[in-house]
Amino acid sequence: MTTPVDEIPAPSPFRPVPSPSDSARYEAAERQGRLTKPAGSLGRLETLGEWIAACQDVSPPKSFERVRVVVFAGDHGVAAHGVSAYPPEVTAQMVENIRAGGAAVNVLATIAGATVRVVDIAVDADTDPSVSAFKIRRSSGSIDREDALSEDEVRAAVAAGAAIADEEVDAGADLLVAGDMGIGNTTPATVLIATLTDTEPVAAVGRGTGIDDAGWIRKTAAIRDAMRRARPVAKNPTDLLRVAGGADIAALAGFLAQAAHRRTPVILDGLVVTAAALVAEDGAAGASAWWVAGHRSAEPAHSLALRHLRLEPLVELSMRLGEGSGALAALPLVRAGVDTLNSMATFADAGVSTGDPEVR
Amino acid sequence: MTTPVDEIPAPSPFRPVPSPSDSARYEAAERQGRLTKPAGSLGRLETLGEWIAACQDVSPPKSFERVRVVVFAGDHGVAAHGVSAYPPEVTAQMVENIRAGGAAVNVLATIAGATVRVVDIAVDADTDPSVSAFKIRRSSGSIDREDALSEDEVRAAVAAGAAIADEEVDAGADLLVAGDMGIGNTTPATVLIATLTDTEPVAAVGRGTGIDDAGWIRKTAAIRDAMRRARPVAKNPTDLLRVAGGADIAALAGFLAQAAHRRTPVILDGLVVTAAALVAEDGAAGASAWWVAGHRSAEPAHSLALRHLRLEPLVELSMRLGEGSGALAALPLVRAGVDTLNSMATFADAGVSTGDPEVR
Repeated sequence: MTTPVDEIPAPSPFRPVPSPSDSARYEAAERQGRLTKPAGSLGRLETLGEWIAACQDVSPPKSFERVRVVVFAGDHGVAAHGVSAYPPEVTAQMVENIRAGGAAVNVLATIAGATVRVVDIAVDADTDPSVSAFKIRRSSGSIDREDALSEDEVRAAVAAGAAIADEEVDAGADLLVAGDMGIGNTTPATVLIATLTDTEPVAAVGRGTGIDDAGWIRKTAAIRDAMRRARPVAKNPTDLLRVAGGADIAALAGFLAQAAHRRTPVILDGLVVTAAALVAEDGAAGASAWWVAGHRSAEPAHSLALRHLRLEPLVELSMRLGEGSGALAALPLVRAGVDTLNSMATFADAGVSTGDPEVR
Repeated sequence: MTTPVDEIPAPSPFRPVPSPSDSARYEAAERQGRLTKPAGSLGRLETLGEWIAACQDVSPPKSFERVRVVVFAGDHGVAAHGVSAYPPEVTAQMVENIRAGGAAVNVLATIAGATVRVVDIAVDADTDPSVSAFKIRRSSGSIDREDALSEDEVRAAVAAGAAIADEEVDAGADLLVAGDMGIGNTTPATVLIATLTDTEPVAAVGRGTGIDDAGWIRKTAAIRDAMRRARPVAKNPTDLLRVAGGADIAALAGFLAQAAHRRTPVILDGLVVTAAALVAEDGAAGASAWWVAGHRSAEPAHSLALRHLRLEPLVELSMRLGEGSGALAALPLVRAGVDTLNSMATFADAGVSTGDPEVR
């Protein structure tokens, strides 16, 4: 008996990931020394260019041709319990706003030369069919008192994120930007980070979209309750996403891990994306070598996650919007690192003298 | 007897500068609250957009149509005394490299949507006529032992910089980027900053293009000697530029002050540009309200000057190249601040609910 190809399930993206190419990185670093600039004078831009060379396994690296932002949208049951400054219906309204091109992510993507796709993973409303192909359910469970997802749902959500990464890479994306949008989503993100970094809730909880003091107290209590539920499953990424994550965050984790398997670099955004990254790295060891942190957000738990992942953010502008906005602020820097490496003249080409007789 | 108009000398740019518009800034800040994002969630991008609204005296601010980088090139006599890792002929070679499009500034400008002009103010060689219309002299004096310029030369250099600003603004530039290039130019820049911030040489001297320890000792001694000559004239910006600056730095100071008079915002680059800015603000009080600091460079004196000017840099990437490279790394952020403010949907337009019943 034969199994048709399309019935063989894709392997879970939560498996170890091979590293970017050390030889291409070395070759790129060597090339830096021959370009018409003092050695090391482009600072962090130089290491960015070398990292992309390693991801592409070629030196000099090629300029990006298709940078794609994917915004994962979802609602969260916990939002009904006063943890956000905005009502839950805003999630579906903002999906439409992003589709129509009116959100911050659209404007920032245009400036940075990227295109935007929003996917409804678990919005608590019916959305346009163009964005709902990967929808897992309406909202996720209220994690302070119940599991976010069933076992089948969490597997489906991780697989959905991986399938979205596959679609984008197959369509030619050579750099991905991960974003998030959903009222209440900083609550599960903070639970995941505080659990995995063993941090007390009060040291991790931020203001999200801008809650007042009473809201912060409600949010912190919800996070404390969810962490009590999360701790016993902290060592298993899939179980952790099921108990204390959400379908959108599980899909993000699958997306980030699968992008790494597909050897495609990703710029991480803020708190929610980095929470998913932290879980994904636990499941897919080595994936973080394919990611760069776009920015440091104003949310305290974001810094905890970045430190745990040993990622140093590119910019720090007190942004706390999500949608991929912080990653897009950093995108021109990644481009700059690549394009200086592949387009600058060498000392030899330009007939410029060098201080070092060994450099030609 | 009448004086033909073209014989009336332009007023010195070193005179007090009016402020950007407070009312446009206020209007822009009010508009931020109506855009589809949590209040304040774009962080520093929001204040950038509001600042440009104030500079343009209109809210929302208009997107930039012509961003222009001007790189001021010049040699310095002190470079003959072993203060740089590169030989002085590199300055003229790099002018050609920038003209040919092969330098870092060219690549970074292309990514950020700007065009580049290099001007030979005091290169110690004959350069192409297309870049030498404002040339003051060949090299500037070795400031550890002689004045950089004569009285006539310093006035001419400041006026040249102002005339270049006028040309660019008249040609439609709505945002300027100031850059520098010249072997040895971090030595006078450090002298100016250390003198004006009353800092000991050892706390201010950096590695420039990458000198070794022996070179650093020679550079520090030259800076100490130049500071002894500079201190008596520290209170007079023109005299200070004459004694311890250089024609390129004097032109930069004139350019920065005149841009402010022409109500045109400028992104400052690193050490050399910011040294000129420090002197320009002393001469043209209020000019710094028209400038933003693009980046924090690896040079210690740069941070001293930024603190003195109360400018907080946008990015910090350990860059130390000059040419305007650090300012160009920050240019997309300024664009992002402007374009989010003028292009995002409002809550009312997009039909998005707000947490605040007073916001429509």
